[in-house]
Amino acid sequence: MHILITGAGGMIGRKLTARLVKDCELNGRAIEKLTLTDIGVPPWPEPFAGEVETFAADIGDFATAKRAVEARPDVIFHLAAVVSGEAELDFEKGMRVNLDGSRALLDAIREVGENYHPRFVFTSSIAVFGAPFPEAIDDEFHLTPLTSYGAQKAVVELLLADYTRRGFVDGVGIRLPTVVVRPGRPNKAASGFFSSIIREPLAGEEAVLPVDDSVVHWHASPRAAVGFLIHAASLDRDKLGPRINLTMPGVCCTVAEQIAALRRVAGDKVAARIRRAPDPLIQRIVAGWPRRFKPERALALGFKTEMSFDEIIRAHIEDELDGKIAA
Amino acid sequence: MHILITGAGGMIGRKLTARLVKDCELNGRAIEKLTLTDIGVPPWPEPFAGEVETFAADIGDFATAKRAVEARPDVIFHLAAVVSGEAELDFEKGMRVNLDGSRALLDAIREVGENYHPRFVFTSSIAVFGAPFPEAIDDEFHLTPLTSYGAQKAVVELLLADYTRRGFVDGVGIRLPTVVVRPGRPNKAASGFFSSIIREPLAGEEAVLPVDDSVVHWHASPRAAVGFLIHAASLDRDKLGPRINLTMPGVCCTVAEQIAALRRVAGDKVAARIRRAPDPLIQRIVAGWPRRFKPERALALGFKTEMSFDEIIRAHIEDELDGKIAA
Repeated sequence: MHILITGAGGMIGRKLTARLVKDCELNGRAIEKLTLTDIGVPPWPEPFAGEVETFAADIGDFATAKRAVEARPDVIFHLAAVVSGEAELDFEKGMRVNLDGSRALLDAIREVGENYHPRFVFTSSIAVFGAPFPEAIDDEFHLTPLTSYGAQKAVVELLLADYTRRGFVDGVGIRLPTVVVRPGRPNKAASGFFSSIIREPLAGEEAVLPVDDSVVHWHASPRAAVGFLIHAASLDRDKLGPRINLTMPGVCCTVAEQIAALRRVAGDKVAARIRRAPDPLIQRIVAGWPRRFKPERALALGFKTEMSFDEIIRAHIEDELDGKIAA
Repeated sequence: MHILITGAGGMIGRKLTARLVKDCELNGRAIEKLTLTDIGVPPWPEPFAGEVETFAADIGDFATAKRAVEARPDVIFHLAAVVSGEAELDFEKGMRVNLDGSRALLDAIREVGENYHPRFVFTSSIAVFGAPFPEAIDDEFHLTPLTSYGAQKAVVELLLADYTRRGFVDGVGIRLPTVVVRPGRPNKAASGFFSSIIREPLAGEEAVLPVDDSVVHWHASPRAAVGFLIHAASLDRDKLGPRINLTMPGVCCTVAEQIAALRRVAGDKVAARIRRAPDPLIQRIVAGWPRRFKPERALALGFKTEMSFDEIIRAHIEDELDGKIAA
């Protein structure tokens, strides 16, 4: 089994690589080779004993796409993307990487030839949805993105479905919830506070909450996101059917419920490190985001996530903090 | 007012041109110039007295797109497309014309500069929908096309919405019903029989019906389709809102109801010219098509169509047959 990961240097890419190296197998087959690519050279997948190729490349470039698939990987995890904020600020870059890069990869696969139809797992996003919404978004709700990032992800979903229908590739698109708790330093993403208000207090630092406690959102841990990717790679084509793009399950909760979970898991002192500082811009952006889903198809197909926000916090403490909380 | 029509040589393009020439105005403003383009040189818009430019060009080519918009038309009707059957047989051609051609036009507009935001009316299609369906498809049902043509139209809808949201263009996408009765000779489109079973009997010829009488579908006349385009060009942006792609109203009826309407309008002898010759391939294709819609938004925005299939037949007799039926 040869696996290609684009965007392998990103947060999810690194965690997926580590999980594959630990498992040594995917879908019951031993992993013999990993090809890892990103805009910078991705880290070497220690302690993997099989063949490894890592290279830095711009996925918006067709030559990169050709190089990435020429050795005919059996499974492709296509994670490479310009994030939401950047795609909004730099329209052309978002189109080139998120749309043209994905299409280049699909076309490169098509050009390899008739007998090559790899499983292609594409990370889409709940950003394909845009307000106004029903109380809960079901599997048949239309995609009306309110960001260029969301539009680009929605376009690739359509292309992936058509390339799959025509037999060029064996695609599965998974719409990830907002992934929390992201490790590392705070970033400028409008969604960053969902992670900050958990991560910083657990590390003994103050976090800023720019929105109201009543804000409702849809979350999954990085661990769960990696689980979705692995499960998508092994899904039975016949059970999946022609509607190959799936909304992933998540934990729906308010910010107040996030904070209550933090208090339960780590105590009052930690939870007290959240400072309220309303930010009208972030409040406006967040108001257009989806809140709650009924991801019945994904659940029926066996995708699993956390059952509560407490579990999401515990996953972060185990995976990132070696079980230790700053008192 | 300067108007650009791509695909101006096609059936809808010619009828739209004729209507604009007859009206001499659009949205209360006199039409001073018409730019007409198609893969072959479109017919000269007699008896239009204003400025006219007609040229043959491949819309899949960015230079064509630049040329088409460089004189800054106020309203663009983007009708040019490879039809459904051809886009399915020739995947690359469909992608190049239907997707890349539309994007080239949008990007060419963006490149003209900050103060240029023409109204851009895009003809999408109910082919953006794919079975299984609810009893009636509402305005929030997701797009899961089952043809490359439908996928390409759905992608352009998403791009048009994002380019509009960003202020690059002032877009409206209208999903046309199956347009009947198409004038001219039978073509090889799988939907061709919907027109043939009316057109040929009215002209004194036999028509072949390849599907069961119980097949349900969604129709509008060419006259109504032109009316949708004109209405879309004058829609109030604030009333339209951010969800700019609209399913057009139509007449929902069975083939049996089509035939009964033909009998009412033209008599038993004409209706007897339909011969049943079941075709399993066409039956299979038609089974995946949408049947019935609840186009509430389009109706609320004032789009109008025929109230019955009888009216659709009468429109054909008036517009194509000078009121005469072959006895």
